This record gives sequence, C-alpha cells and structure tokens, in this order.
Amino acid sequence: MCALWRQESPRDPTFAALNRCFEDDWFLLPYELAVQRAHAKTLAVAGLLSAPEFAALEAALGEIERRFVGTGCPATDAEDLHTWMEEQLTARAGDAGRRIHTARSRNDQVATLTRLYVIDAGTGWARRLAAISAALCRRATGWADLALPLHTHQQFAAPGSAGLWALRYAVSFDRVRRLLVERLAEWRHDCPLGSGAVCGSSVPIDRRMQAEALGFERPAPNALEATTTRDDALELLAAGAQLGLHLQSFATDIIVYSQTPLAIVRYPARFGTGSSMMPNKMNPDAMELLRGESCGLQAAHGELLTLLKGLPSGYNRDLQCAKPLLHGAVERGSRLLDLVLAFVTELDFDAERAAAALRLGHVNATLRMEALVASGVPLRQAHHQVAAEVAASPDPATPLIEDPLSRYRTVGSAAPAEVRRVAAELLAALGVE
Amino acid sequence: MCALWRQESPRDPTFAALNRCFEDDWFLLPYELAVQRAHAKTLAVAGLLSAPEFAALEAALGEIERRFVGTGCPATDAEDLHTWMEEQLTARAGDAGRRIHTARSRNDQVATLTRLYVIDAGTGWARRLAAISAALCRRATGWADLALPLHTHQQFAAPGSAGLWALRYAVSFDRVRRLLVERLAEWRHDCPLGSGAVCGSSVPIDRRMQAEALGFERPAPNALEATTTRDDALELLAAGAQLGLHLQSFATDIIVYSQTPLAIVRYPARFGTGSSMMPNKMNPDAMELLRGESCGLQAAHGELLTLLKGLPSGYNRDLQCAKPLLHGAVERGSRLLDLVLAFVTELDFDAERAAAALRLGHVNATLRMEALVASGVPLRQAHHQVAAEVAASPDPATPLIEDPLSRYRTVGSAAPAEVRRVAAELLAALGVE
Amino acid sequence: MCALWRQESPRDPTFAALNRCFEDDWFLLPYELAVQRAHAKTLAVAGLLSAPEFAALEAALGEIERRFVGTGCPATDAEDLHTWMEEQLTARAGDAGRRIHTARSRNDQVATLTRLYVIDAGTGWARRLAAISAALCRRATGWADLALPLHTHQQFAAPGSAGLWALRYAVSFDRVRRLLVERLAEWRHDCPLGSGAVCGSSVPIDRRMQAEALGFERPAPNALEATTTRDDALELLAAGAQLGLHLQSFATDIIVYSQTPLAIVRYPARFGTGSSMMPNKMNPDAMELLRGESCGLQAAHGELLTLLKGLPSGYNRDLQCAKPLLHGAVERGSRLLDLVLAFVTELDFDAERAAAALRLGHVNATLRMEALVASGVPLRQAHHQVAAEVAASPDPATPLIEDPLSRYRTVGSAAPAEVRRVAAELLAALGVE
Amino acid sequence: MCALWRQESPRDPTFAALNRCFEDDWFLLPYELAVQRAHAKTLAVAGLLSAPEFAALEAALGEIERRFVGTGCPATDAEDLHTWMEEQLTARAGDAGRRIHTARSRNDQVATLTRLYVIDAGTGWARRLAAISAALCRRATGWADLALPLHTHQQFAAPGSAGLWALRYAVSFDRVRRLLVERLAEWRHDCPLGSGAVCGSSVPIDRRMQAEALGFERPAPNALEATTTRDDALELLAAGAQLGLHLQSFATDIIVYSQTPLAIVRYPARFGTGSSMMPNKMNPDAMELLRGESCGLQAAHGELLTLLKGLPSGYNRDLQCAKPLLHGAVERGSRLLDLVLAFVTELDFDAERAAAALRLGHVNATLRMEALVASGVPLRQAHHQVAAEVAASPDPATPLIEDPLSRYRTVGSAAPAEVRRVAAELLAALGVE
Repeated sequence: MCALWRQESPRDPTFAALNRCFEDDWFLLPYELAVQRAHAKTLAVAGLLSAPEFAALEAALGEIERRFVGTGCPATDAEDLHTWMEEQLTARAGDAGRRIHTARSRNDQVATLTRLYVIDAGTGWARRLAAISAALCRRATGWADLALPLHTHQQFAAPGSAGLWALRYAVSFDRVRRLLVERLAEWRHDCPLGSGAVCGSSVPIDRRMQAEALGFERPAPNALEATTTRDDALELLAAGAQLGLHLQSFATDIIVYSQTPLAIVRYPARFGTGSSMMPNKMNPDAMELLRGESCGLQAAHGELLTLLKGLPSGYNRDLQCAKPLLHGAVERGSRLLDLVLAFVTELDFDAERAAAALRLGHVNATLRMEALVASGVPLRQAHHQVAAEVAASPDPATPLIEDPLSRYRTVGSAAPAEVRRVAAELLAALGVE
Repeated sequence: MCALWRQESPRDPTFAALNRCFEDDWFLLPYELAVQRAHAKTLAVAGLLSAPEFAALEAALGEIERRFVGTGCPATDAEDLHTWMEEQLTARAGDAGRRIHTARSRNDQVATLTRLYVIDAGTGWARRLAAISAALCRRATGWADLALPLHTHQQFAAPGSAGLWALRYAVSFDRVRRLLVERLAEWRHDCPLGSGAVCGSSVPIDRRMQAEALGFERPAPNALEATTTRDDALELLAAGAQLGLHLQSFATDIIVYSQTPLAIVRYPARFGTGSSMMPNKMNPDAMELLRGESCGLQAAHGELLTLLKGLPSGYNRDLQCAKPLLHGAVERGSRLLDLVLAFVTELDFDAERAAAALRLGHVNATLRMEALVASGVPLRQAHHQVAAEVAASPDPATPLIEDPLSRYRTVGSAAPAEVRRVAAELLAALGVE
Repeated sequence: MCALWRQESPRDPTFAALNRCFEDDWFLLPYELAVQRAHAKTLAVAGLLSAPEFAALEAALGEIERRFVGTGCPATDAEDLHTWMEEQLTARAGDAGRRIHTARSRNDQVATLTRLYVIDAGTGWARRLAAISAALCRRATGWADLALPLHTHQQFAAPGSAGLWALRYAVSFDRVRRLLVERLAEWRHDCPLGSGAVCGSSVPIDRRMQAEALGFERPAPNALEATTTRDDALELLAAGAQLGLHLQSFATDIIVYSQTPLAIVRYPARFGTGSSMMPNKMNPDAMELLRGESCGLQAAHGELLTLLKGLPSGYNRDLQCAKPLLHGAVERGSRLLDLVLAFVTELDFDAERAAAALRLGHVNATLRMEALVASGVPLRQAHHQVAAEVAASPDPATPLIEDPLSRYRTVGSAAPAEVRRVAAELLAALGVE
Repeated sequence: MCALWRQESPRDPTFAALNRCFEDDWFLLPYELAVQRAHAKTLAVAGLLSAPEFAALEAALGEIERRFVGTGCPATDAEDLHTWMEEQLTARAGDAGRRIHTARSRNDQVATLTRLYVIDAGTGWARRLAAISAALCRRATGWADLALPLHTHQQFAAPGSAGLWALRYAVSFDRVRRLLVERLAEWRHDCPLGSGAVCGSSVPIDRRMQAEALGFERPAPNALEATTTRDDALELLAAGAQLGLHLQSFATDIIVYSQTPLAIVRYPARFGTGSSMMPNKMNPDAMELLRGESCGLQAAHGELLTLLKGLPSGYNRDLQCAKPLLHGAVERGSRLLDLVLAFVTELDFDAERAAAALRLGHVNATLRMEALVASGVPLRQAHHQVAAEVAASPDPATPLIEDPLSRYRTVGSAAPAEVRRVAAELLAALGVE
C-alpha cells in the first residue's frame, strides 16, 4: 500500500490486526460508490475537478462497481474501504483520484455510509414486517372462529381464538414497522457528507447538491454533530431490540402451545428436529432458536450504548466498532424475520384439541360472571358468587359455554366478526388486499 | 382489607412484601382517577350504572382527588392502587363502587395508566429538551466568534468555535425531542382500556367513548396485545437511553475543556465542589454526576428488555416490576434535564485561553492544506506537503491563522455566520423567538 | 452546615439535589463508625491525636452508634454521611473532630465503606443460599421416588423425579454460594483505608494496624487502584446476576409445572393470588414476581459496568451513583432469597398427576432404546427402531415402564438412591445434619 | 447426510440456515476429539464396545485429528460438529461409530465441550494477564521516580508517579487473573459428560473414569443441572466484563495523558495513525480501539444473561447461541490482551513535560497542608488555611515542592521505595523474577 498519509513507523502487528477493518467494511461498498459519485459531481461543479477528471472518475467508479459489487472481499492490505477505494480510483483515474478526498474526511464519509446503510436496513426490515403482519392478518381471518383458551399469568384465563392470537402479533409487528417508517423519514433528513473532519471545510463545495444526490433532504446542519453521533444506528437497533421482544414472545407462545399435554398447535415439521438420544422427541427448535437469536438484537443495542458512553465530541476511533455490530444485527434481524414469515405460513392449530382444552381450568367463569352482571348483580358480588361455584367444583372440567366467542361484545375482543374487521382494517392500512 | 376476590390463605410474609405495590403505584393516582371517570361514564351510558350511581361515583372521585392528589401515600394494607381505589369508592358510593369494575380488569387498567403516564412523561421530557435546545441556540449565537480548538480522537483537530460546539448539542437534544413528539402521537393512538383481562368482554360497553374521554384516538384493536405489551414504556426508555448518550458526551466535553492545563471553559462554581482532603481542588462534580446518573437511563431500558424477554402472551405479573422502573427513570431524566438547562445558562468559555490554545497542536494544518488545494495542488499531494512541514516543526506552537473561522465556507461549518444561521433556524423550528 | 471546605458560591438547586447523597448513604452508617474507630486508633498510635482526644472521639462514636444505628435517617443538610459524621464528632469532641480526617480522604473512606458493606452483603447472601440448598436437599431426599416427566426443549423428554429436579437447584444455588465464599476471601484481603485521595499520604500512619482493625489481611498495595476501582461491588453484582438466572429458571419451572393441563405441582396458596376479573384464576404470582424482580439483579450489574466504562484513574464523582445501585441490588437479592426459602418449604408435587403424565409423550422411549442397546443392538440402530415404533403409534399415551426411575444406573442420574446420595453429600458439605 | 435420527420432512430453508451450526462449532473440534476418546474408553471398559471396535475408533479419532485439527472447516451438510463426527467415525469404523453415542446425548456432550473450552480460554487469559502484570511491575520499577500529576475528578490532584500509575493496572489485571485461577479450579471440578439428555442413563457406564480421563475431579452430581446451566461460560464472561473495565480505563488514561496540551506520555508511533484529512494528526487509535473493542466483552456477558433468562430446566436449543457468543468474546479478549502487552512494552512517559506539569494546578497543596498538620494544626484548619492561599494565588503555576514523591510515608503510596517494594512483591507472587 502506498501510504495515503504520514505513517513513519510500521504498525505493531497486535495493533494492525485491530486497526484494519477492510473486510468488516466490505458490506458498505454500494454506499461508498454512491458517496464517491455524489462527491465527484460536487467537486466538478465547484471547479475542483476538470471535466476530464470527472469523466475519468465516473468511468473508474463504473468499473469498480461492475467488478466488485456482490463479490467477496478482495485480498488487499488497505486498512479500510475508503483507502482501498482511493487507491482503486487513483490507479484508474490518476490525479483525479488524488483530488477526490478534497473537502472531505473519512469522518463525514463513514457517517454518511452508515446512514445510507441504516436507511436500506430499516427499509428491508419494514418490508419484511409488512409481509409478516399481512400474513398474520390473513391467518387471523381464517382462525377467527377457532376457539382456544388464552392465558394470563401462564394460566388458562378465558376463551379466545387463534385469530385473536395471530392479530396480537400482526399489531405488534406493525407497530415496529410504523416506528421504522417514521425513523426512515428522520434518517433521510440530514446528510453528513461535507461535514469534513469536524468543523466543515474552507473549500466552498455545494453541500445541498451532495445531499440531494444521495437522496437526503438537506445537509446536516452541524459538522461536529454529524461526525460524532450515531443516533441513526442507535435508533435502528432500538427498534431491533423492541422487535426482539415480540419475536421472543411469539416463540414462547408457540412453544407453550406445543407442549405435551396441551399441544393445541400443529407444529410444522419443517421447523423442528429430533433428538440424538431420545427417539420420541420432535422439538420446536426453530422457535427456540428464534428466541435465542433475537437476544442478539437486544445485545447489539446495549453494546452500541456502552461503546458510545462517555465519548467526547468529535470522531473517536471507537466508532469503528459500531460497523460490524450494526451489520451483524441487521443481517440477524432479516434472517429471523424471513423465518417468521415462512413459519407463519405453515403454522396451524389443532381445532379439536383446542376445543377440548376449553373444558379445562374453569375457563368460562368470567363469561358466566358477566352474564350475572347483565342480570343486574353488582360485579363484585357476581365475582364472589362464581368464585364460590368454582371452588365447590374441584374438577376443573366444566360444561362448555357453547360457542363462547359469540358472547364477546367489545371492540378488539375475541368476537369473530371483530377479529375479521380488525384484520381487514390492518390489511388495508398495509396496502395489501 | 375486605377481600375483593377469593383468597383463602393468608399470604406468606416473604411474598406479601413483594406482592404489595401500593406505594410504588402511588404516582399513578392522577391517571387512575381519569380512568375511573371515563369508565364510570361509559358504564352509565351503557345502562350498567344508574344516574344516581354515576353521580355518587363522580362525587366520590372528586373527593378522593381533592384529598389525595399531591399528598404522600396514605397508610393502607390495600395491595395495589386499583384495589385501594375500589375500596374508597365503595366506602363512599356503596353498590356503585361494587359495579365499577364491570367489563374491566386490572390488566387493561394498568396498561392504560402506564400509557397515560408515558404520555405525560414524554411530554415533560420534550418540553425540557426544547428549552435546552433553545438555550443552546442562544449561547451558540453569542459564541459564534469564540474560536477554540475542536478535537477528533481526543486530539486537537481544527479551529472551531464554542458556537459550533453548543449547536452540536442543540441539534442532538432536538433530535431526541422530535423522536418523543413522534412517539407521543403513537402513544395517543390506541387506548387499552376496555380490553378486559385478555379477550375483551361480553358486556357491551362503548370503547370508543372511553378512548375519546381519555384523549386517545381509538380503542386498542386487540385485547391480547393491549394487555400484554409495554411498547410505550419501552419506546420512552429507548429515547431516554439515547438521551443518556448525549448527556454523557456533554458532561465529558465540559470535563475535558475544564482540565488543567487546557481549561478553556469557565466552569460555573455553583455546579462544583471542593475536596475534603485537597485544598486546591474545584471539581466538576455536576458533570460527573450527570455522566454517572444518566447511566441509569440506559440501565432502565436494558432492565425492561430483560424483564419482558420471553414472556408469553397475556398479562404476566412480571409486569408489575415495570412500574417503579419506569417511574424512576422518568424522574431521573427530568432531574438531569433540569440540571443541564440551569448549567447551560451559567456556563462560559475563556476566550483568551481558547485563543491561546489555537497556537498548539498544529491545529491550523488542514486550513493550510486546503489553501494549497485552492491553488490547484491535488489534495493528497497537499496533505503530504503540509504533513512534512508539520513533521519538520517539532514545536507544536505555530503561527496562528488570523481569524481562522472566517475561512470556513460550507453549510454546517464553524463559520460564524453559518452558526448563527443554523441557530436561528432551529429556534424558529422550536417556535421560540 | 458549617463548610468543611471552601465553597464560595451557593450550589445551584438542580445540582444540590444530585450532589447530596446523605439519605442514600445512610445504610453505610455501621461501616462508617467502624472506619472512624479504626482511623482514630491509628491516628492516636501515630501521635496525631492525644490520649484525651482519642478518648473523646471514642465516646462520641459510642454515643452516635447508640443514638443512630438502626434508626431512620436524621434530618440534616449535610451533603454526605462522611461530612455529617465529621460534624457530629466535632460537635461532641471539638478539635479532635477537626483532626479525624488527617491522612484520609473521602476517596479511600468510601472505598472502604463499600468494601465492608460488600463483605456483609456477600456473607448474608451466602448464608441464605446455604439454607436454600439445604432445604432443597431435604426435599430432594423426600421426593427421590416421586416420578415425573422431565423436559428438554420444553417437551417431555424422559422420566425423572421431583428429587432430581430439586437437587438441580440445590447444586446451582450452592455453586453461587461457593463463588461468594471465594470472593469473600478476596474482598477481605486488601483494605483501601489509608490510600488518601489518590497517592497516599505524607503523614506516617500505620496502615497495617488500620487494616487489621477492620478485619482485612493487609493494606491495599496501590493507593490509585484502591480509590479508583469498584471490583468488589462488581464481583458481588456479577454473582447476583448469575443467581438471577437460577431464580428465573426456578420460577419458570414452577410456572410450567403449574400450568393447566399439566399441573403436577401443588402450588402453595400462600404464594398466589386471584384475579380481579376472572373468578376462576389462582395465579402463581410469587414465581412471576421472582422472575421479574430478579431481572433487577442483572440490570444492577449492567448498570455498574456502564457507569464505570471508560472512567480514567483516580476517584471520579460518577462513583457516587454506585452506592444506591449496590444497596438496592443487595436488598433485592436478600428479599428474593428469603422468598425462595419460604416457598421451597411449602412447595409440593402431585404424585398422582405426575405419574399420569408419564403415560404421555412417549416419555419412556429412551429407556426402551437403551434396553435394546443392552441386548447388543448398536445405539444408532436402536434409535431408529424405537423412533419407528413411536411414529407408528400416534397416540402419545403408551404403557408405562413400571418404576422407570429404578432403571437409571449412572452417577448423578434420576435413580432414587443416587438422588439421596448426592443430597446427603451436599448437606454434609454445607455442614448441616 | 444420512439422517442420524428421524426427520421426515425436509427443513425449511429459513430454518435450516439457523439450525446448522457446524461452522460455528468448528473451534470445538479438539474438545470433541477428547470427549470421543474418553467416551470410547468408557464404553469399552463397560463392555459396550469390543476391543476391536474400540481400536477402530481410536484409529479413526487419530486420523481425524491429524487431518482436521488446525485446518479450516471442511465443506459438509452435517448440521453440527457432533453429527459430523459420528458420520466420520462411522465411515471409518463402521458399527463402532453407530455405537459411540450410547449412554450419551448431544446435551451432555456440548456441555462438556463448552466447559473444556472455557477452561482453555480461562487459562489463556490468565497467562496473558500474568505477563501484562509482570511487564507493568517492571515498568513501575523503572518509573518509580518519574513524577507526574495524578488526577481525581479528571483534575490535577497530587504529585504521583508513572510507577504508581503502572502498578495500579498491575494490581487490577492481577485481580482478574486470580479470579480466573479460582474459577478454573471450579470449572475443573464437575464433568457433565455422562449426564445424558436430562436424567442420566440406564446404561451403567463409569462416569468417574470418564471425568478423570478429561481432567475433571468428578462427574457432575446432577444430570439435569449439568445439561441445563452454562455457569462456566457466564463466569468466564463476567471476568471478561470486569477485565473490560480495566482495559477501558487504561485506554482512557493513555488518551488523557496524550492530549495536547498535557502530553506527558510518549505515545508509541507503532500504535497510532494519521488522518486522511488533517496533516497534523497523530491519533492514539490503538487505545481508542482497545476502549471500543472491550465493550464487546461486556456485551457478551449481557447477551448470555439475556439468552438464558427465564429458560426452564432441561436443555433448550437457545443454548446453541451461546457458543459463537462465547467463542467471539474469548478471541476478542485474547487479541486485546496481546495488544496491551505489546503496548506496555513500548509505552513511555516524557519526564520533563511531566515535571513541568507539576507546576500547574496547585498540585502540591495537599502536601503543604499535611506539613501544617505535622506541625500540630488540626487537619480541618490546615485545609482552610491552604485553601485560602490557593484562592489568593489565581496563577495556577506555583513553586514546586522539590522531589514531592519523597514526602509520601504510607504503604501503597507514591513513595518510590514503596512502588518498588510492591512491584517486587507482585512479581514474586506471579512467580517471575
């Protein structure tokens, strides 16, 4: 590597290993290309690149894109992606390559790449979440009449439906999706590029043009802020942590519904495994792995918080560690969402076993109490009366209320029509049929 | 306590201590009153309370409000706020009190109280953040010409200004404020009340009226989701964790700027202390405590994630632990923001010492390099040339560039006019003069 | 308050509120007294206090102890416990009080108080853990023949026993206890007192005498380290976080064993509650609260890590925040352990329901496979053969192996004799009958 | 892959990707081989393998070791390392391979591999920590007379020495080392192998022989505990998190000591970089990366806590996620320790600049006050007197106390002889000259 800047001593090997991040950076190549293009154009307009220089850079960028995007990481001793790119451009476009870093620092450059990646990642997660919510709405519609006992305190509580259950996650996942959509608007607002190392530049480039070329609304208004903070990544990972909670609950629900002797779910065999020792086992591995892997989403958010804690203003090299952290969490989130979508499509409930379970645990007691209330008994008195009945009947198997779901009367309840209404409304909001 | 529901055995004292949360709940009293009012009205409209019963409840709620809001927590053996309230209402309004819990569970009740509190807390934080950002914008305007060295890698990097520094935090705090404003709209969307224990109710109450009475747009569309999740609290605490990072960086910056021998900040004496042993010390305690206390904001978010991890659908009693966690973090955040606002008002820089510092660390090297670029030298070559000059002049004190801030030309840079422009724009967006 | 040191300006009220920690410190009073006694003696021996001065301080400390230990926190405007104590001593012992802080700083003082508290807290936890492990060993002995299905992947796996289950936690809790015992030896090693503010003192006091008086082996060997670090608290909280995991698993197990329709545990009514809405519910609240509250143990460890992250050497005021954090976690841990001990004593299993559950889920398949292996069939072939049998018998209810526990042959297995042996061995190691 | 156990359906590709962990497991190969050897021997002694079968397995294991240990991961569709190994053994040793899994499950197998890896990893960290502590002791001896100002509250506090500073870390790192040594004894205590899937086995193998063959003291006493918990990994990662704090403080100290205008450290050029934009910069990147990367040690501990939170007893597939987490943290910790050792060797201080800094910040005030105390003035009065002097002399440059280090009189202080004594004592304890 020809040194791009002064480095008199060779690096200690223990440091060199930490210092290089070229391989870790490789996922940012498409964004690096976009930034180089926007910057070259800006320099050309400012008269800092001649027309032939600009053309040479454009050509070089095209070549690099064709040769490297989508491929594995090339062997190089370049310390990072930006250095490698400048070498590539200088090799192909000569002095134009030596001018490309004008009015720019790696500090604003990496902040911009990160933001562009966060935008793409958030868009990808939002798209997946929309697909999952839509799939759950469709399942909910089909399951609106499929009665089963729902739990509170992990105990049977009241008759509900597989439809109500599926919609619970459609609503949760859609909330995270809407959060992402709002954040996407925020991330697209301010473009860090052109902030320079810390204070901007004395070279009069047009940051507005740059920002627009990269799809942002405007240049970031404070060079120090734009190069220091990583709120974009933090906000994405906070959404990921929140998503993780819903993934973990989803997994737990399925595992609970699959347990012997309840087993009201038909766990899809394509998502399970057997045991190396126990011939009787069929394990809900996909849900256990979903629950386990999603912890990494929360850990990534926590790690970024720890990493940034107490850092002073101005770029600090600690920020290098944010890139693989972010990349790993984004990829993980996408994999888990793909799994959930596929799983939702194959999941089914065992309506007969679910119906049988409704005979257990005095699960219809609340509906009986509410019938007393309807006849004028004060709630608290009706509660005591039904509780006494329950206590007097130690056998938890009690007569079913026929079609208990038809009793529900409130918005958002387990009433089949209500489940279908809410599913349709959410599908409409998602813009799918 | 008269038992509101069946509890045949006395509680074990080790459990009773954990189970009771009345004192922890007390901060929720205003929201409990609002919920009782909205629910009483809904029951009255549904014909489940007679007009005199409704009037008796209204009167009782008025009395309770006058007597208890803003006071310390009364002595009681009620296990939680909802139980205490029902006792109070029954004592004052008789059978009407025994009917008030119709079509309702503590599960939807506590979810609603939590959301109302989150809305108030988010509003309070957003208001404080607006005040801080505005104060920083005003200081930035005054400090736009006050030059000082800004750091990258905690080393002197380039000439900047106290104005650019102050705006960095105005922008960061304003970002968190805007995040809160967006979340407030989300939290005001769905009202959990009327979701019942888990599946809704067979008593036909008008949840839309209830939601409206409490300031929400609509009833939550899924009873299971509304009683299970705590996304509102999680989103508030995620914003708090993000805020914590900016508070920590702010504190670190001030501490660094106060250090002997740099000392370019006039640390306000009203925010420091001396030492019990060392007579020479004046310590930046307020900033150290700000940095330390704000870690609790991040810990609260992490604790809520851990608490909720892997819980199945339906209310679980683990959720009780979310209330003091949330309350503590909200109060802490408010205290820290009040401190920052007061501190910003008194903070000042030492312009002479800051100017002297600009003679150190070759801090003008980048501006010299950009001057070469302006004369046509390729950036990378200009970089090598200035680096060689720097290396040849081991004395880090070099001639100042006169008025370096006037050299900056880019949007968002340390140019004084640009600092003033951005400050004015942000003040306008904040709706203050 | 008379100023103990220079403070020219009044404190800003927003700062004063954060700065004062007297109430938060109050739990440290017994340790403060011990430290004052040891220090007074050391100063007396060094000739820095006269005999009458030393006597006056001793008397004053006795008075303060009698009046304040075990009482609530007195009203004062002293900013912290050390300041209050010096005021109290000066009020009672005149100039001797003004000399007591010789060769000492609040920095080494608070480090010593923290360590003494950590030692007491660790001792208390270890004692509780021993009691719980012993109780579990005794229950395990009684339950050694009580067969039930044990799970892997939350699915029925193989016949085990309530005894094996109880011993699992006896072993886990005992491991944390032994960790604490090892850490206690470490914490008792080095005494921070006498480290001064940061570098020691030019006043020649005998730190060895001081250390011995406080029950330590020797003075801490590095003044900078002793005043900067909080490894003692961190190690205690790390043990607490580890303990939290076992508490959470314990709670989850009981909740799972209590679920309809499995319900093989007789959940003790003194540890549960009913529902405000659902008259049929008896909820395992104590276990849910145990699972929820124990998250605070993990959060405390995480918060201390965040708090300390990146702090430079030498006392930093951020450390003030470690005290309430530590105190809260210690109290919480103790409460939870007291609950577990009481719960274990009352917990029981339903042997009949447990036996019935063994007819489900082909839970005896592994034992059948191992019988084939004993007759010479290669394991992998036996596995396929039994798996085919299981697959051919869709009815999960299969003939029981009579007394399956008697089949186990390995150390640490569910064989009743083995459970009793291990329980006896652990009881012996715990030094109980 | 021939199916080792029943798996009727193909796996969904989204699940297959999560389910396979062969590549993630590859680092466990040496431990897998050790476990296979110990198990084969145990089965042979129990008569479950014939002598030729045992010999065939031994030969196969030797071949596999020679071919694969130390190489990259081979291409395979085996889902995990254990499956791949059984395939390899069966391919080479026929029926003996089909018998090797007798009286064993992947559950006890992976617990054993994890523990063996944790033991190796803890040993490696402990060795590195010993080397670093020894290096710091040697530097401390050389720097015992090199005076510099030490900080509290990040402000100059009192004259100390580079020796005292270096010893601070020797002591901290040695504490973590001793913690690891204690934990190593614990981890070597109980061998999980032979615990089977969850309850042990009906095949009478000699677990004591197995344990001994693998270097453990005894078989784990409870099959359920041994297959469920991961306390070994958690304890190693807790030590890693604690280590992380010291690494972060070390990095911060060096960065602070390198800052313009203090700059009392000669930052070794082999551990720094320049800037792409600013020709004047030499950045302490190695220390920034050390500070940043070490956050991953803390995140790994937090992630494992989250992963395990609330899991019920018995192996759960979530545990698969613990392996890459653990492996990544161990490798990271080793890399960072190697960096620190190399860095400590090259680090130096600038004695002249350090001496000059002692003229600043009234850093000798405490020594002056202690001189007054020695002459009989009560400490509190001496404190006020010196504070008044300091306040009257606004110029922070005050006459040096000549050779301030010689004034210190306490154990563990900055007195040069004391620094040398402590360094020698610690070197002796470390068993190096």
